[in-house]
Amino acid sequence: MKDILLTGIKPTGTPHIANYFGAILPALDLAKNEEQCFYFIADYHALNTIKNAEEMKIHTYEVAATWLACGLDPDKIIFYRQSDIPEVFELNWILCNVTPKGMMNRAHAYKAQVQKNEEEGLDVDAGINMGLYNYPILMTADILLFNTNLVPVGQDQKQHIEMAKEIARYFNNKYGETFTIPKEMIREEVKTICGIDGRKMSKSYGNAIELFASPEVLKKKIYSVVTDSSLPTDPKPTSHMLFELYKLFANSQEVEEMTKRFNQGIGWGEVKKIVFEKANEYLTPLREKYISILANKEEIDKILKSGAEKARIIAKETICRVRKAIGV
Amino acid sequence: MKDILLTGIKPTGTPHIANYFGAILPALDLAKNEEQCFYFIADYHALNTIKNAEEMKIHTYEVAATWLACGLDPDKIIFYRQSDIPEVFELNWILCNVTPKGMMNRAHAYKAQVQKNEEEGLDVDAGINMGLYNYPILMTADILLFNTNLVPVGQDQKQHIEMAKEIARYFNNKYGETFTIPKEMIREEVKTICGIDGRKMSKSYGNAIELFASPEVLKKKIYSVVTDSSLPTDPKPTSHMLFELYKLFANSQEVEEMTKRFNQGIGWGEVKKIVFEKANEYLTPLREKYISILANKEEIDKILKSGAEKARIIAKETICRVRKAIGV
Repeated sequence: MKDILLTGIKPTGTPHIANYFGAILPALDLAKNEEQCFYFIADYHALNTIKNAEEMKIHTYEVAATWLACGLDPDKIIFYRQSDIPEVFELNWILCNVTPKGMMNRAHAYKAQVQKNEEEGLDVDAGINMGLYNYPILMTADILLFNTNLVPVGQDQKQHIEMAKEIARYFNNKYGETFTIPKEMIREEVKTICGIDGRKMSKSYGNAIELFASPEVLKKKIYSVVTDSSLPTDPKPTSHMLFELYKLFANSQEVEEMTKRFNQGIGWGEVKKIVFEKANEYLTPLREKYISILANKEEIDKILKSGAEKARIIAKETICRVRKAIGV
Repeated sequence: MKDILLTGIKPTGTPHIANYFGAILPALDLAKNEEQCFYFIADYHALNTIKNAEEMKIHTYEVAATWLACGLDPDKIIFYRQSDIPEVFELNWILCNVTPKGMMNRAHAYKAQVQKNEEEGLDVDAGINMGLYNYPILMTADILLFNTNLVPVGQDQKQHIEMAKEIARYFNNKYGETFTIPKEMIREEVKTICGIDGRKMSKSYGNAIELFASPEVLKKKIYSVVTDSSLPTDPKPTSHMLFELYKLFANSQEVEEMTKRFNQGIGWGEVKKIVFEKANEYLTPLREKYISILANKEEIDKILKSGAEKARIIAKETICRVRKAIGV
């Protein structure tokens, strides 16, 4: 049996290439074999961190354009904005009434804040708002609303799925079988992709190569990767991050040839030139597609609205079933 | 300037006469002079206590029929079911993100439960669900959605209005002037109405006279009020609860005459007969109206749906303004 799969995407600006190879591509690959996929922009989850209207709007368009440019086919994947599905928020409230407060006290994100507050000698709940505290319930509503049975998550999100399962069971026990119990699908840890300083690529380290960087910026970034002072005729280690970077963009034949050249000896300058050209060749169509999609926000709105319409057909069915169960 | 007034009504079964004279009548009186009144059946608030679909449905119809029978004019008061306004639940989530968790920790209802748990040596959050904990935020959403500036509440609900004000201010400070800051209107303590045993009338004491009791039950209840063994020729104290009861139903001339008879001497049997007849005369049209309204649930649905349509015009305007402010 094929699955109903749901993935939330936070509107947090433009991605870097580690996001692309580590999260976006695998998510799009996954969707190919599933019964029905719901991919949504979790704007109302982001409200907790994005407190500026302009930023929220831009980030939402950017993230939509990113996924569309990377190949998300809105005819196959139901792609929508969370905020376009009012049923999510109604279900969120309903679920509150079967969710023990003790469960929320155990949520990792909340506990981490409490610990930080304790270490700083502050009130345990200092700086914590109810958006953070209720987050797992809204996420449960996102999942249960679409009869999702599979939720691909990173290891760090596993607890949220456990909670979604528990809340669904509480409801089913109290009101009769209503919700599908979801299952987590822990994403395999993708091989760490390094940033230009050799550490794990991360926005916060400032070592990231943006997926849609201009050729000039891309070149500058790749050329700034640290190399040693060996001669051009010296063999080079294929463990070097320039080689790793090349592997992301080149096909297997090209990788084989590059391996030979690394073993025979090649100058770092030439390596950088080849890596940049290969990366740029790969990324140029993505970048152009991204720019052209982002230039037409009305079209993005149209796509997301159309996705929301499809999603709401199922959302309404679920809410109808739930309302019947509780008697409103 | 006239006010926009909002009142939530819990669907908790049929009322007794103390509810009628102490809460329903004053609320309907109040509505006469206001700009716009929103009276709603708070079914999604009740979800925390009513865990049975049939009970929820019946209670909702009963409470709607009660208010309509008592004179609520749905052409003048916007009368709706909370669950028919999806914007409430969206706003509820939005407000979570500007509500400090510390504020919820201070809510009386929550604190009372915590104290009870502590006294019983249980975990502080034992038996507490997130519906109870989030209750003040949903109530704030109910209020702010309709630009309410006046909320009539009992003294015990004052804190909730304080919270609504604070949450509205937090939002306005962060995102610009968006919400009207509501004001509480503390209901004057109505003179305590006694039950048939002389204690305050209360469902939980079992001493209540139901507003829509059949004449037989009404008679039985009134005849069971405790009296002394004085002679019919002895004067009777006008502080007696049978006199108080009479005052609720009789006009001033009738009360004057009864005062004379009490002073001159009257038999308790006759008093009971007169009180029952007066009460029954007063209550019969209400009871008949109630029964006839309740017999036509489709008509109740129609009235509440029509109220919801009117309410949603304003709800949508508010949500639109809020969404613009936050950028979704």
